[in-house]
Amino acid sequence: MLNPQLDANGELKHLLSTEGLPREVMTHILDTASSFLEVSDRDVKKVPLLRGKSVFNLFFENSTRTRTTFEIAAKRLSADVINLDVGRSSTAKGETLLDTIDNLVAMHADMFVVRHASSGAPHLIAEHMQRIGREDVHVVNAGDGRHAHPTQGLLDMYTIRHFKRDFSKLTVAIVGDILHSRVARSDIFALAALGAGEVRAVGPQTLLPSAIGRMGVRVFNDLAEGLRDCDVVIMLRLQNERMNGALLPSASEYFNCYGLTPEKLALAKPDAIVMHPGPMNRGVEIDSLVADGRQAVILSQVTFGIAVRMAVMSILAGN
Amino acid sequence: MLNPQLDANGELKHLLSTEGLPREVMTHILDTASSFLEVSDRDVKKVPLLRGKSVFNLFFENSTRTRTTFEIAAKRLSADVINLDVGRSSTAKGETLLDTIDNLVAMHADMFVVRHASSGAPHLIAEHMQRIGREDVHVVNAGDGRHAHPTQGLLDMYTIRHFKRDFSKLTVAIVGDILHSRVARSDIFALAALGAGEVRAVGPQTLLPSAIGRMGVRVFNDLAEGLRDCDVVIMLRLQNERMNGALLPSASEYFNCYGLTPEKLALAKPDAIVMHPGPMNRGVEIDSLVADGRQAVILSQVTFGIAVRMAVMSILAGN
Amino acid sequence: MLNPQLDANGELKHLLSTEGLPREVMTHILDTASSFLEVSDRDVKKVPLLRGKSVFNLFFENSTRTRTTFEIAAKRLSADVINLDVGRSSTAKGETLLDTIDNLVAMHADMFVVRHASSGAPHLIAEHMQRIGREDVHVVNAGDGRHAHPTQGLLDMYTIRHFKRDFSKLTVAIVGDILHSRVARSDIFALAALGAGEVRAVGPQTLLPSAIGRMGVRVFNDLAEGLRDCDVVIMLRLQNERMNGALLPSASEYFNCYGLTPEKLALAKPDAIVMHPGPMNRGVEIDSLVADGRQAVILSQVTFGIAVRMAVMSILAGN
Repeated sequence: MLNPQLDANGELKHLLSTEGLPREVMTHILDTASSFLEVSDRDVKKVPLLRGKSVFNLFFENSTRTRTTFEIAAKRLSADVINLDVGRSSTAKGETLLDTIDNLVAMHADMFVVRHASSGAPHLIAEHMQRIGREDVHVVNAGDGRHAHPTQGLLDMYTIRHFKRDFSKLTVAIVGDILHSRVARSDIFALAALGAGEVRAVGPQTLLPSAIGRMGVRVFNDLAEGLRDCDVVIMLRLQNERMNGALLPSASEYFNCYGLTPEKLALAKPDAIVMHPGPMNRGVEIDSLVADGRQAVILSQVTFGIAVRMAVMSILAGN
Repeated sequence: MLNPQLDANGELKHLLSTEGLPREVMTHILDTASSFLEVSDRDVKKVPLLRGKSVFNLFFENSTRTRTTFEIAAKRLSADVINLDVGRSSTAKGETLLDTIDNLVAMHADMFVVRHASSGAPHLIAEHMQRIGREDVHVVNAGDGRHAHPTQGLLDMYTIRHFKRDFSKLTVAIVGDILHSRVARSDIFALAALGAGEVRAVGPQTLLPSAIGRMGVRVFNDLAEGLRDCDVVIMLRLQNERMNGALLPSASEYFNCYGLTPEKLALAKPDAIVMHPGPMNRGVEIDSLVADGRQAVILSQVTFGIAVRMAVMSILAGN
Repeated sequence: MLNPQLDANGELKHLLSTEGLPREVMTHILDTASSFLEVSDRDVKKVPLLRGKSVFNLFFENSTRTRTTFEIAAKRLSADVINLDVGRSSTAKGETLLDTIDNLVAMHADMFVVRHASSGAPHLIAEHMQRIGREDVHVVNAGDGRHAHPTQGLLDMYTIRHFKRDFSKLTVAIVGDILHSRVARSDIFALAALGAGEVRAVGPQTLLPSAIGRMGVRVFNDLAEGLRDCDVVIMLRLQNERMNGALLPSASEYFNCYGLTPEKLALAKPDAIVMHPGPMNRGVEIDSLVADGRQAVILSQVTFGIAVRMAVMSILAGN
């Protein structure tokens, strides 16, 4: 099967996952994002690249934060943005996902930004576009189940490249609830494609996928060992619902074992950077001294995230 | 009493209902919509006709689908669109409907798109505009109670005219829950004004209005008889709340009697078209083989719907 | 401590409260609003002063009415407006207020319009901007707890100035639930700065702050006495939650004592104006004969409110 993200010429048609995304496509997105960074610093933060295009934010799962980043990115490209809080509407009326999509395509949608609790929903929509012969309509995965969150993966790569340049020499530790994290998966695939030296998955056994060994990462259950001599530390958010479940004894015990404190961070290289996809649980997975410390690049990730999303949308729209 | 939708020169001032809407006004809307169809196909899907105008989507009853179509139409006309989810706001604070409206008029609103559970609410607002001498503010009914849904009626007329040309030779069957359907009412009045040959109301006795005979339609309780030799079949959505109520035994029994299957559709003319206002309940009022079949024009209705709404807004704004 | 609303040159940097706002800054806002009134009357109601700026409506407390006025004002200045219904999002995920703010600043926000149930939240954000050295990001208080609602205060001053010109000769009565009213507080400080002749606080003892005497107002528990020979009557909304609480016997008893009827109003000067911040409880704090009478300027307040908000945003953005 052809990679559904790419057209016959190998160009980006949809952004569904960092898995299977060729290095050169990724690099092209990051380079394009670079040029958009400057737009957000201008007095008039707008370029007309998507003027007259209709971008639909289809959030079947609520996420104000992520929806806002896409809304800002699209508006700075001058698109018309329509927010659909789909959880509360037609699906509740018994309509199928693809009927909802067909309707929006009939309204001349140009792009769908899709968030869905079910893994694979954006793929399904992308395949449907091919089936109905509407390959001019593009799909961006804004997070699907435990599967992928590719714009987060790409903004993480942008951040690492910005601060560390050469991926081949880097040791990157991803710490926390890897089992439930689409961010971790997207980062691992992207780091592999970009040739990162060593990628580590660090967390309690109950929060690591059983097949983690096959993903080309080194597994650590001990945080101190996992952090030793790292260049990049990516902390994952611990979802509230895990904290008092069967997988973890308590939030404070989690913090004792896997929370990033200045002492733990001292085991990494002195110039290591600390990343987090947000929103942070201070005192759970990360100590405030680290979150607000000189090694944290968490807010840079946010800034780069807007530029990366502008780049993805602009490339998809054929600019 | 003068028709509150028309000004002294017989031009459209508000769009409240297809009832009492003169044939020439309707035809003017459909002709204007034709010219807007092309805008949505452009690379830059925007015209500046409503630039700097403030369009308020006042949805006292929630409907993401319909609100989206008006939002897209207004944005493609370059209006500033403000969505007010009114159910959750001021009315909850005890303010009267007309106080809410007066406030928005004081903010220099140009157009209200109104959805309301109570029949007549948009009329009330339109009359109020006259009373306060603000006839430059226009009202579009986006569905009021069981009364009217005129833009749906007009887009249905656009669809029929597009596929069938001459209304006078057509037999049109409207099938389903006509009792609760503002779409059916709007279609029946519009078909009458445009001179449709024969209009049929098909459904169980419990879902037909008692005064249906006076509306100039032929009544059928049997679907097969109602469909025979039809040119146009308009299927109505069966509201979920009817299905397990006193009016109907069950959804599956409804499907057996009134669901449109390929076998039933074969009784209509071979080139009959099948319409549905959406969202569809597949397997309840319509079989998927019909919904996705070659005779269905359901997605064309959606596309034409945007153009019709652009036409209505643009005519009201005096372009 | 320097006034956090003003920069080193005494120019407006944030709008947090009418308390401590110098008379000349206030007058500059009102004069600027004057020039924007005309924009809302134009055919194309738009000026490009905030083009390419990102304005975030951060409503931690729901208020469709107030949010709409800021949204309209920002759109007429050509800003990109992003509405964040924050109550339902990140704070629910355990993120701190300042982490949410830092994230939006990292997305290159230019202005925050903040509504919050806690008094002082907008101040906290403004101070944070200084701490992180981002004084190019501006904060507008859209109502915080019982503390302040400065744009309402300013639009009230605009209204009084428009109808009465010289503040020094005026007697202004503020009537109702002054204890819980941020509008009353904002009006009292603004009237003092603009040199109003006499300001009266009229209401039952249980709804007056204990420190009211220190605010430079004359206190009346009797409505008739409080209204005598007034030039301006500002009626406050009685929050529903007060009506059946411990503070008041009942809504109808409140109306008997403090509701503004034509008879009561006749005690004020014949050309006295009646104001109300909306939404009104007709029959509770105000009789419909007064609300719709010739002395009411309640809808003018709404119109002026848009112009005042445009003025504040435009001044903050440095135009």
